[in-house]
Amino acid sequence: MAPMTTVGEQMHALVERLYPLCRSITGDGVRATLEIVGEYVPLQVHEVPTGTQVLDWTVPQEWNIRDAYIADTAGNRVVDFAASSLHVLGYSVPVAATMPLTELRGHLHTLPDHPTWVPYRTSYYTPEWGFCLAQETLDALPDGEYEVRIDSTLTDGHLTYAEHVVPGQVPDEVIVSCHVCHPSLANDNLAGIAVATFLARALAERTPWYTYRFLFAPGTIGAITWLARNAERMEQVKHGLVLACAGDPGRLTYKQSRRGDAEIDRVMRHVLLASERPHSVTEFTPYGYDERQFCSPGFDLGVGSLSRTPYAGYPEYHTSADNPDFVSPEAMADTLAVCREAFGVLDRNRRYLNLSPYGEPQLGRRGLYDSLGGRSDAKQAQLAMLWVLSLSDGEHSLLDVSERSGLPFDTVAVAAGALRGAGLIKA
Amino acid sequence: MAPMTTVGEQMHALVERLYPLCRSITGDGVRATLEIVGEYVPLQVHEVPTGTQVLDWTVPQEWNIRDAYIADTAGNRVVDFAASSLHVLGYSVPVAATMPLTELRGHLHTLPDHPTWVPYRTSYYTPEWGFCLAQETLDALPDGEYEVRIDSTLTDGHLTYAEHVVPGQVPDEVIVSCHVCHPSLANDNLAGIAVATFLARALAERTPWYTYRFLFAPGTIGAITWLARNAERMEQVKHGLVLACAGDPGRLTYKQSRRGDAEIDRVMRHVLLASERPHSVTEFTPYGYDERQFCSPGFDLGVGSLSRTPYAGYPEYHTSADNPDFVSPEAMADTLAVCREAFGVLDRNRRYLNLSPYGEPQLGRRGLYDSLGGRSDAKQAQLAMLWVLSLSDGEHSLLDVSERSGLPFDTVAVAAGALRGAGLIKA
Amino acid sequence: MAPMTTVGEQMHALVERLYPLCRSITGDGVRATLEIVGEYVPLQVHEVPTGTQVLDWTVPQEWNIRDAYIADTAGNRVVDFAASSLHVLGYSVPVAATMPLTELRGHLHTLPDHPTWVPYRTSYYTPEWGFCLAQETLDALPDGEYEVRIDSTLTDGHLTYAEHVVPGQVPDEVIVSCHVCHPSLANDNLAGIAVATFLARALAERTPWYTYRFLFAPGTIGAITWLARNAERMEQVKHGLVLACAGDPGRLTYKQSRRGDAEIDRVMRHVLLASERPHSVTEFTPYGYDERQFCSPGFDLGVGSLSRTPYAGYPEYHTSADNPDFVSPEAMADTLAVCREAFGVLDRNRRYLNLSPYGEPQLGRRGLYDSLGGRSDAKQAQLAMLWVLSLSDGEHSLLDVSERSGLPFDTVAVAAGALRGAGLIKA
Repeated sequence: MAPMTTVGEQMHALVERLYPLCRSITGDGVRATLEIVGEYVPLQVHEVPTGTQVLDWTVPQEWNIRDAYIADTAGNRVVDFAASSLHVLGYSVPVAATMPLTELRGHLHTLPDHPTWVPYRTSYYTPEWGFCLAQETLDALPDGEYEVRIDSTLTDGHLTYAEHVVPGQVPDEVIVSCHVCHPSLANDNLAGIAVATFLARALAERTPWYTYRFLFAPGTIGAITWLARNAERMEQVKHGLVLACAGDPGRLTYKQSRRGDAEIDRVMRHVLLASERPHSVTEFTPYGYDERQFCSPGFDLGVGSLSRTPYAGYPEYHTSADNPDFVSPEAMADTLAVCREAFGVLDRNRRYLNLSPYGEPQLGRRGLYDSLGGRSDAKQAQLAMLWVLSLSDGEHSLLDVSERSGLPFDTVAVAAGALRGAGLIKA
Repeated sequence: MAPMTTVGEQMHALVERLYPLCRSITGDGVRATLEIVGEYVPLQVHEVPTGTQVLDWTVPQEWNIRDAYIADTAGNRVVDFAASSLHVLGYSVPVAATMPLTELRGHLHTLPDHPTWVPYRTSYYTPEWGFCLAQETLDALPDGEYEVRIDSTLTDGHLTYAEHVVPGQVPDEVIVSCHVCHPSLANDNLAGIAVATFLARALAERTPWYTYRFLFAPGTIGAITWLARNAERMEQVKHGLVLACAGDPGRLTYKQSRRGDAEIDRVMRHVLLASERPHSVTEFTPYGYDERQFCSPGFDLGVGSLSRTPYAGYPEYHTSADNPDFVSPEAMADTLAVCREAFGVLDRNRRYLNLSPYGEPQLGRRGLYDSLGGRSDAKQAQLAMLWVLSLSDGEHSLLDVSERSGLPFDTVAVAAGALRGAGLIKA
Repeated sequence: MAPMTTVGEQMHALVERLYPLCRSITGDGVRATLEIVGEYVPLQVHEVPTGTQVLDWTVPQEWNIRDAYIADTAGNRVVDFAASSLHVLGYSVPVAATMPLTELRGHLHTLPDHPTWVPYRTSYYTPEWGFCLAQETLDALPDGEYEVRIDSTLTDGHLTYAEHVVPGQVPDEVIVSCHVCHPSLANDNLAGIAVATFLARALAERTPWYTYRFLFAPGTIGAITWLARNAERMEQVKHGLVLACAGDPGRLTYKQSRRGDAEIDRVMRHVLLASERPHSVTEFTPYGYDERQFCSPGFDLGVGSLSRTPYAGYPEYHTSADNPDFVSPEAMADTLAVCREAFGVLDRNRRYLNLSPYGEPQLGRRGLYDSLGGRSDAKQAQLAMLWVLSLSDGEHSLLDVSERSGLPFDTVAVAAGALRGAGLIKA
């Protein structure tokens, strides 16, 4: 039952479905989002009550919103939440008032440099209300009285996040995390959600070596909540990747883990370089997305972050211009492809021990020349076996072998398989 | 009571006062020098008797000189010690004789390439006498008999050196050393003496973290004597800087300690680079000034050396052209400023431990956003806090944080102060 | 009794003597080769019986050949082993048959891209017979019947290799290895054999520090046999060098040991760089010559390989064009000179301990200034002493001193000798 559309188109369709929802760090927008994602991959949804202590933080009250607008005296809605979830300041407290424009201005957010774009603003931990609108909309408003109305609630409730697990051959885990707290912003982070979703489906096609755990959680407080509730799991988390800004037209950017030499760092650098894609690799910084939580010094996990144009690096960032037109099927498919390549390497990147380390073992006697001799890539395969034998001292991984030999990782992994089959190396 | 003159001018005035004195590795010239320096900062003067064993060396006899000249048969002094202390070979044994110019020539030192300059020469450990003069003076001497007279004494006495201590908050010490054994040479090392003197005054304005110990001692034998007499102090000496050639027009040169990765090396490199001054940083060499003693392999102290044009690197080196005109108030003020910046960094460069290392602590709740939010450098300050939190794992110093983040050291140190005030990190 | 010819010419004469012999991994060709080499340096010849287990391998049957040809129906030998040992596939099983050219073609090896050259081919471990010939010879053969005859024997016998030892002052060994299994190929490896032979003579001129062991053994199986029989010696083998392709017109290439930082690697890099010869230094690869056995992970010896144009890097490789004209006296003399320089450094490259490490020792008192003062290189000699004193902390070798100071190794070694003579350092 082959799909009629490409995987890129399927991811873009998911972005378009999710786009109108008003997500925040809590509330029904997140739940609706997870319900849609759950149609693609089964999710375990967690609800964590308001007031729960999570590391240094406390789960806040749940925010929900039904309607919000600014109306002129004639009753015309000049700014309307129904048109875009960006129009209301995230976590706005309720308001119902009439006030002159001069007073209202203190609650309005615009982007003077981009007069047709609506900014995205929030005030999670300071009680506040406000509207976001285009500068040109504001400029067109005549002085006078306006009715402002935000029909929101801030009540004890829950923080919602979800997990999806692709079981592997070993309990050691790779976590893939994407934030689900932003309202109508396509690249940040519906594209990341879509890539994570389809990556999970791809990994499940064949039982991977590692167990892959996908996290769909609000930024910062969501990651902190997950970390707080999974302290006992940390030993098992061997690698991880945060997906964000996964669909814009920019080239791929891999941001290294705090450690800088974690295996995921080496794998991502290798795959990006070997693929000959234009790309950037950047040092860790303690800001950006949830890598800042996973890489906080107490955890210091081997978690990097893959984006196209990185965090806050494009003019459309946190504006209404980050809409589904800003992300493309091709870009998301490219991000997905790199993730699959990288996890393909990570999953096979083991250290072997040469069981015949004194001199070269006689490969011919074991049919390891014959079995390859007739193929056009025979010479590479044979060199790969010599390299694996030479470096299988328990210290070098297959990725080390690939990089020192200049041979493709796949060639090296196949050679290791042949040598293991002949009993010449063991994991 | 603000001084009417700049600090550079004050240092230059000190150079001019010290210039005429006939210093050597022992004797009254050193004592007179220390007496003048003692007018600026209180000195503890040490007198070490001739014959004292100091490491592999022995304190030599004390040399003093009252008069020296070459006179023609008419009694005219054609070379006169009274005109410049450079005219007599340092440590000359006494002589009173009449001899033809042909015989005298074997005792005369000139600089044929710089016919108007008088060279500086010594013979500390081989008994010898001699005169230094301009080549053009020598060329003008008619053949004939000359009276030569050196009224010097070499007798059991003392080697003299001095210390000045700026007490700090901890007993760990930083030593600042300058040689005081050269006669009328301005850059080598009256400028170094002047910078050290005014640096000591500046450090005392506010109790520093470290205890700063200033050494005013003759080169080689003086440093060796101090090391021999302070063996028990070595544990406390954490950092050090040798000041020499501190006033010439060249750009600053920092010569690293033998270790190359001592904290003083990192601090000096950082400050010179961050200040955007033209400068050089050079590897350690086992010749130059007293860093060669402090960095000998048995001690291997973290002691670097700051000069402008380095040791022997300028034509005026060890000649009468190294006079007070060769050093400028501006150059000495610049050297002083870099020392103050460097010790400002060194003094605050501590390793902290993040007390809330699991995930990011909630800064907003502690007012660490509010307190900074209104300032124009708010974003940098906030980034600096995130960087300090991220790297405060007991391994990284604030200088590491500054270099990894690209943020100015001051910004990082202020952020660390705020976090420490909030109880989020500890030293 | 000075030789009338240069050492390069003597080496070339040896190459020409050895060239006609039909060597293989076993057999009388190897024995004849060792007999000739034994005229230059005494050899201990080892004979290891067929069937002996050596590491993962088994010593094969011994191959000998008396005659081989392809003759046309008129009895004319169109391909004749007597003309060149390359004409027969190495280890060919015996054959005596008449067959049409169409059938014979399956046993013929040519080089279509070099129609006048005869290739070199072997089939050591798969029973096979064949002839190697020029493509133009093949092209000229009319269709029809041909008599093929290979008068060879494959019987239980021995594998033959030889050792020559230059005794040193210590039992620690340097091994110099060259393969002796190739038939009429001059650069690969008669030039290596010649350089090794004359290197052994040169080293014996003066008792070296290390004991130098020269191995003349067939490639792969010979090195493996030696390793298998010398397991107890491995502790003593401190350094080694494989010599191959030592006479072609290309520039020198040093291939590093698997470790990459073995002392032989540092010495060879230093000598090649300091000599200002054009040269290459390459990383270890697990193919090439017998370094692959010495550097297999179980042994991991500090053994590098010196060639001119490296393994398989020239068109004449493994063809009749690799004849005595392809190697020159000058190239072999140059390779020999670099070996002598390198072993000259290796032999003196020790770590010393400064016995007067606190401050500088007073060199003048010990006559270490006087003794050098009058020479034009006095300043360098004095700097070298200061450098040796500074770095003689048990961690730095004289090569480290040379590289950090920028002073020639010889200057440093002479300075170390003077300091040792004065009791200031010890090994």
